[in-house]
Amino acid sequence: MVMAGPCAVESKEQMFASADAVVAAGAAMLRGGAYKPRTSPKSFQGLGPMGLQLLDEASARTGLPVVTEVLDPRDVERVAQHAAMLQVGSRNMQNFPLLREVGRQRLPVLLKRGAAATVDELLFAAEYITNEGNGNVILCERGIRSFDTATRYVLDLAVVPLLRERSDLPIVVDPSHGTGRASLVRPMALAAAAAGADGLLIEVHAEPHKALCDGMQALLPTDFAQMMVDLRRLLPMLGRRLVRPGVSGHGASANGTISDEFIAP
Amino acid sequence: MVMAGPCAVESKEQMFASADAVVAAGAAMLRGGAYKPRTSPKSFQGLGPMGLQLLDEASARTGLPVVTEVLDPRDVERVAQHAAMLQVGSRNMQNFPLLREVGRQRLPVLLKRGAAATVDELLFAAEYITNEGNGNVILCERGIRSFDTATRYVLDLAVVPLLRERSDLPIVVDPSHGTGRASLVRPMALAAAAAGADGLLIEVHAEPHKALCDGMQALLPTDFAQMMVDLRRLLPMLGRRLVRPGVSGHGASANGTISDEFIAP
Amino acid sequence: MVMAGPCAVESKEQMFASADAVVAAGAAMLRGGAYKPRTSPKSFQGLGPMGLQLLDEASARTGLPVVTEVLDPRDVERVAQHAAMLQVGSRNMQNFPLLREVGRQRLPVLLKRGAAATVDELLFAAEYITNEGNGNVILCERGIRSFDTATRYVLDLAVVPLLRERSDLPIVVDPSHGTGRASLVRPMALAAAAAGADGLLIEVHAEPHKALCDGMQALLPTDFAQMMVDLRRLLPMLGRRLVRPGVSGHGASANGTISDEFIAP
Amino acid sequence: MVMAGPCAVESKEQMFASADAVVAAGAAMLRGGAYKPRTSPKSFQGLGPMGLQLLDEASARTGLPVVTEVLDPRDVERVAQHAAMLQVGSRNMQNFPLLREVGRQRLPVLLKRGAAATVDELLFAAEYITNEGNGNVILCERGIRSFDTATRYVLDLAVVPLLRERSDLPIVVDPSHGTGRASLVRPMALAAAAAGADGLLIEVHAEPHKALCDGMQALLPTDFAQMMVDLRRLLPMLGRRLVRPGVSGHGASANGTISDEFIAP
Repeated sequence: MVMAGPCAVESKEQMFASADAVVAAGAAMLRGGAYKPRTSPKSFQGLGPMGLQLLDEASARTGLPVVTEVLDPRDVERVAQHAAMLQVGSRNMQNFPLLREVGRQRLPVLLKRGAAATVDELLFAAEYITNEGNGNVILCERGIRSFDTATRYVLDLAVVPLLRERSDLPIVVDPSHGTGRASLVRPMALAAAAAGADGLLIEVHAEPHKALCDGMQALLPTDFAQMMVDLRRLLPMLGRRLVRPGVSGHGASANGTISDEFIAP
Repeated sequence: MVMAGPCAVESKEQMFASADAVVAAGAAMLRGGAYKPRTSPKSFQGLGPMGLQLLDEASARTGLPVVTEVLDPRDVERVAQHAAMLQVGSRNMQNFPLLREVGRQRLPVLLKRGAAATVDELLFAAEYITNEGNGNVILCERGIRSFDTATRYVLDLAVVPLLRERSDLPIVVDPSHGTGRASLVRPMALAAAAAGADGLLIEVHAEPHKALCDGMQALLPTDFAQMMVDLRRLLPMLGRRLVRPGVSGHGASANGTISDEFIAP
Repeated sequence: MVMAGPCAVESKEQMFASADAVVAAGAAMLRGGAYKPRTSPKSFQGLGPMGLQLLDEASARTGLPVVTEVLDPRDVERVAQHAAMLQVGSRNMQNFPLLREVGRQRLPVLLKRGAAATVDELLFAAEYITNEGNGNVILCERGIRSFDTATRYVLDLAVVPLLRERSDLPIVVDPSHGTGRASLVRPMALAAAAAGADGLLIEVHAEPHKALCDGMQALLPTDFAQMMVDLRRLLPMLGRRLVRPGVSGHGASANGTISDEFIAP
Repeated sequence: MVMAGPCAVESKEQMFASADAVVAAGAAMLRGGAYKPRTSPKSFQGLGPMGLQLLDEASARTGLPVVTEVLDPRDVERVAQHAAMLQVGSRNMQNFPLLREVGRQRLPVLLKRGAAATVDELLFAAEYITNEGNGNVILCERGIRSFDTATRYVLDLAVVPLLRERSDLPIVVDPSHGTGRASLVRPMALAAAAAGADGLLIEVHAEPHKALCDGMQALLPTDFAQMMVDLRRLLPMLGRRLVRPGVSGHGASANGTISDEFIAP
């Protein structure tokens, strides 16, 4: 189960180029941020409602369901109308009012681990969502803060089998944020699969050097396609297969439901 | 400038006992949480609106202005009606909708550094508030995550002089959360003063072993009083003096304004 | 290329049981510590010279070459007489006199990354060895210190492809120390292979609960054998194959040389 | 008790200039490295025996006893002939053969905490020394590794009162390495004193921009003198006084003994 697309929705041209590339390579979901949490208020903050509209169009064009981030509890209902899956970003892993609000939706929630959150804290955060009635939570490892600046974060893959021991929730890995360097994304995506991850979240941009957000970590479409080829070769050795929407009715579907096969080996 | 009180407002008796103790020892502001961000949804989450009401009563009783945390952008207006200063907790340092909302208030905002936030990120977070028109931001160091579990967090006092070089905003230190151990609060409060902090945020509880939140790090009233004695002796050697409300009109006043003398040496 | 065996050499029975298990499962080298760096002086410090003797016997019995740690520059010559590869442990990554001393030997050196060492520091440490004339250095990722105690260390697999970009030295991963939990060793060994590691260092103990050192992270012989089966299935998909001593003359040989095929895909 | 001087002994002129400055300002001991542990083998590694000779001369000139680092167990005896106190650096905190060797000397040992060592590990390292018969160990906090690069390390002052609770050994703080920035040394030195430290280790260099090692963190003589003035004013408020050699026979003396008053309040 691979979710891919640009970090941020920037324009129709950019979004469509990315979306076309990821569907061609076999991704199961499309990602892209309309609301962007940015360290500096001067950085590009996302297109907001117009970004959601562009995600709708990209979804219609490709047939891929969309996962997108929501930052503000007051935006949850609106974002939910445009998404098949809601993302709670790492900065908001302990934004409890937001967790409760997405817990009142029926959509699956992709909950990213905070950059300095323990495994316990991640599981408690998931509980804030499930306690409201939404049991459809997907945990996401996306790298933790460390002392070494050689990579943007340290991708903590051991939490994949560790979370498996402690939870029934599916586990997704984001090697794009987790490393911050495009050249490391492919090997770490394969490593995540080998560690037992149920899915991957990958940033793809047709022109990374022009990206308004996190271009350093975005794969070019050709590199993404190569990653998918490698993944398709590796997964059967791990007793798994790649999920595609529309293929024999399994996997994530455009109407926002995730089938039982999502985490099926 | 010492702000003190219990971690959470638990009951009238508990709140009054703490408030009486901190005003007697010479604190300038009263702290106490009505909305508590808790790692587990099963932990005590605060009394909410009833807690705000109890803070009003404790403020009226002691004459001390109140600083209290707000978690949800939808609660900002309500909390602002009961507080002289709004606190944004460490988990919410990059909750940008909340930062913008408190930036639209006129009250001073105590912005706590995230447990894994860099100095740059703290200053950018402050900018989200000041950009909305509220320049009255107080930065707070409250400990960062580290590998050693001997203390709850590592209190990073070097950021006090470092922030001074890079910002005009006042800087407050919270040695209670920053160490997580009551026995370390007094020496670290003195160290914070020596490092140049403009204020301290101290947890005081009449019965720490019965506290519903963070009892391990709360000072007993007698220990808090001793800390204030030591502080009063030390500050003049640093060219500073302790600010009290009502003393010749300086310092934080009960109507929610912070005078220019707040950070005056 | 899998190096496996107990953390410490404890006795002839224990060493032989481990050695028999790892050779049966297809390991290429035997590991075991005669000199153990232990946090507390009260912990078992290794058998010293008698441990080296037992390693000789285990090597003769199994035909596997031995990698073992040296702690003291004064012991380097002695240890070199009993080992096919010298290990410099993570605590000694910046023990510069020791690095220079192993640099004067002809044996390959397994250099473990310090628990808080950056990639730059690891490469500089390797340079201390190569500068003395010994270019046969193998870099080893074995986990770094982090804030989460759910695992003993955080295994930083992204350094595998990162080191590959910056160095020609082979890269080995130690998921036993890197996680500290036996149940995580197999998935992280596979992940390390998928990330591109040239080898693995695995702790195997016939009776982990009786181990004098690090029993929590040691695999049982049956679990190690299963890991080898999985690895043998996965590696061809990554364009690699498992190296065994004595198989058509390739791989590490008992006379202490590592062939060019060590890192060959 | 203030120990001060340059990071490394570079030349007679440089060493004498520093030594003259620190004795004039009232330091009790002279520091300077003849053997330098450097991350890169290309960096200046210290003058070795010639550096020890220059330290002798600087000590004779100023009357100050010398503390200097030893890296190699084979050098301990030689260094001990030139020093009043042996320093074990942070990289060597778990260099157990070195700890045992300095434990067999009669000189006091300044044991620096490793950059990623826990309090427990520091105390166990001290035990390696005391177990050999040398109970005269001084613990030194010098900053730990963290995620923020705004300072070189994070100076963890809370360990001062924490170590006090758990050990009878004196505790010294090194704000020069602990912050890596000269402008932060004075406030953090005062903070260390307020936290209860028994001594300070301060880098002073007459021409920091020309220093061969760590110039960014060295104080100019005038700034060091100002720090001493501030310290002299602050300490009495903490129930302490500054120790000077030769003043009524107390404090560290040139013959290498540390009196009982070293840690006396």
